[in-house]
Amino acid sequence: MASVSLYFIRHGIAAERGTYANDAERPLTDEGRKKTRQVAKRLHELGLRFDLLITSPLVRAEQTAAIFQATAHDTAKYDLPVQVSEFLAPDRNFTDWFDRFQQNLKQQSGDLAVGLIGHEPDLSAWAEILVWGEVRSVLVLKKAGVIGLSLPEQDSPIGNSLLFLLIPPKLLI
Amino acid sequence: MASVSLYFIRHGIAAERGTYANDAERPLTDEGRKKTRQVAKRLHELGLRFDLLITSPLVRAEQTAAIFQATAHDTAKYDLPVQVSEFLAPDRNFTDWFDRFQQNLKQQSGDLAVGLIGHEPDLSAWAEILVWGEVRSVLVLKKAGVIGLSLPEQDSPIGNSLLFLLIPPKLLI
Repeated sequence: MASVSLYFIRHGIAAERGTYANDAERPLTDEGRKKTRQVAKRLHELGLRFDLLITSPLVRAEQTAAIFQATAHDTAKYDLPVQVSEFLAPDRNFTDWFDRFQQNLKQQSGDLAVGLIGHEPDLSAWAEILVWGEVRSVLVLKKAGVIGLSLPEQDSPIGNSLLFLLIPPKLLI
Repeated sequence: MASVSLYFIRHGIAAERGTYANDAERPLTDEGRKKTRQVAKRLHELGLRFDLLITSPLVRAEQTAAIFQATAHDTAKYDLPVQVSEFLAPDRNFTDWFDRFQQNLKQQSGDLAVGLIGHEPDLSAWAEILVWGEVRSVLVLKKAGVIGLSLPEQDSPIGNSLLFLLIPPKLLI
């Protein structure tokens, strides 16, 4: 199996809850787009490279993914593939998503950096499951913030991953 | 009691272990000084302000504190007080340090941002005690890296603090 770094990226600032009949359609605001672009640009300038982005199908998440993809192209000159996954929509089950994810990993080798774009409180809860084996609600993940985890190569990642990054956008802008 | 943000800052890159008869005297290398200065400058440029730094008495920690102090003065134009504490030397007991620290906090009010400069694996272990109530050895704190915790105002901070920042120097340089 590949040596995997997982980056949990929360979507940027979106239109207020309740302003769209279908919550899934709430887009990023102008400020959300701008800050997300600054975060993506800064991370790429600092040398972070993703092999793959997987995003929630909600508009605010897909827009965040598109910004990261465009920045990878413009700033770092590489093509960053984006997949959409229903499993990253809000309120989905960790196990469903992670079982599928691990199945896909089995076909990979070498170092792999995967960005997952989704929602709170799911992303920080999933990071906690990977690091501590349970949800403790102690990680603060701001919009357009990033959590970085390193998965172990041998053991089960659940409860055995390392947390190497937790950064709010204000420290990247 | 004050509303407290704690920043655990690991000293910068120092001379190799074994190159000094007294380990406490190992200084930062040129690269260590340079990177630590870049990290301190960047954090200050991003708006981080400390009310107080408390440093381990070891040379590499005191030098790191001096760099943060000088940067506060030069970049952010404020005077940053530095205290030296034996409790932050390597292999000291969390409870000894934290009891003393909390006693001092009782005389404070308002928002307080305190930087603690010390050593691994102590700093990340202490952060884990504050966030999870026990040491799990899952936080990766690089030299000149920073962990940010927010202590609760009412409950005991042990097991009740929030982790809002974990950043390696390469994302600040």
